[in-house]
Amino acid sequence: MRFKNEADLQKWLEQARNGEPKQVKKTIAPALTQIDTSLQRRIIGIDTALRCTGWGIIDVRNGTMTAVDCGVIKNTPKDKISDCLRRLSIGMRELITLYKPDYAVMEGAFFFRNVHTALMLGSARGTVLAALAENGISTYEYAPRRIKQSVCGFGNASKEQVAVLVAQFLKIQTNHIALDATDALAMAICHAQALAVSGGLGIPEPL
Amino acid sequence: MRFKNEADLQKWLEQARNGEPKQVKKTIAPALTQIDTSLQRRIIGIDTALRCTGWGIIDVRNGTMTAVDCGVIKNTPKDKISDCLRRLSIGMRELITLYKPDYAVMEGAFFFRNVHTALMLGSARGTVLAALAENGISTYEYAPRRIKQSVCGFGNASKEQVAVLVAQFLKIQTNHIALDATDALAMAICHAQALAVSGGLGIPEPL
Repeated sequence: MRFKNEADLQKWLEQARNGEPKQVKKTIAPALTQIDTSLQRRIIGIDTALRCTGWGIIDVRNGTMTAVDCGVIKNTPKDKISDCLRRLSIGMRELITLYKPDYAVMEGAFFFRNVHTALMLGSARGTVLAALAENGISTYEYAPRRIKQSVCGFGNASKEQVAVLVAQFLKIQTNHIALDATDALAMAICHAQALAVSGGLGIPEPL
Repeated sequence: MRFKNEADLQKWLEQARNGEPKQVKKTIAPALTQIDTSLQRRIIGIDTALRCTGWGIIDVRNGTMTAVDCGVIKNTPKDKISDCLRRLSIGMRELITLYKPDYAVMEGAFFFRNVHTALMLGSARGTVLAALAENGISTYEYAPRRIKQSVCGFGNASKEQVAVLVAQFLKIQTNHIALDATDALAMAICHAQALAVSGGLGIPEPL
């Protein structure tokens, strides 16, 4: 805290003697209410696709991240669209009931080869987003580059490089984990880091 | 039924005297099991969109259609995507529980201005499709032209023209019904007509 002159300091000390200074209250209170890092938060990252959706859950407390669980919801290429979406919806609802996450993270800013691909991926995203929203879980979207940057330090990292650094971050073995699941863990790590920086002021608006 | 020669006819008559001829059984049975038009079927048409989803339900029995209910699930342009999808998902599940439809119909073969629009509409379609699939309801897709053709007789009809002809088909007043809801009723009528023709052989594969 800075004071313009001696009189200003004296005024502040006077206030402090009579109770907590009002000026301090005003400046500190909003920052504290934004994100309390001492509370444990559970974050689920979801790498959505129609055929293979990766998911990864971590706990964060005071900047320390702990892996909880991860996996994939798989469909064979022969499965009908409605079957894929049914399995995805039921799977997501099961995960939410079992792990009760506080936040969800998905990848945004897509590049598609054609409109049909966008429509198919949109269906999968909508199914996941509806299941999360129905359970009151806020979903945040980060660009793929930002997710890779937050884990690997550069935005063009391969899926294998992401897996190696996720292993280091969470102190787990990722050799036998599907790459879609480690990608999902990377999303959760990205959001955990955003929460920790400047009391969470850097996190985007939820979807 | 055609016979090659007199001997063939005699053989068939012999079989018929000893019970129902096997050949006749084989040819008639599959057609009968495909669609039994004397059973009452309930069809829900859904005109899916993120901001305003129209729905319309009809009952069909022996080629006679009866309107059951119709309406729209609305979201304001200010609503977040997750809120829109939550409302759509809850709304669809309520409709399914209340009306227990046998089939669902949606519009297919889309033309989009850009990939973002496809992604947004895909989200809404995925949410609706997942809710239907979870409840074991088969969803059929028809091209917009085919839907208009089956109601109006030509594929370029306007929404207003569709509403007028839906009113005639179902013998209801559509003046105070939203155009998205009459469009949804037209989808249900299109599927009802497809069911009635050639024992339902003309209906497409479900999604």
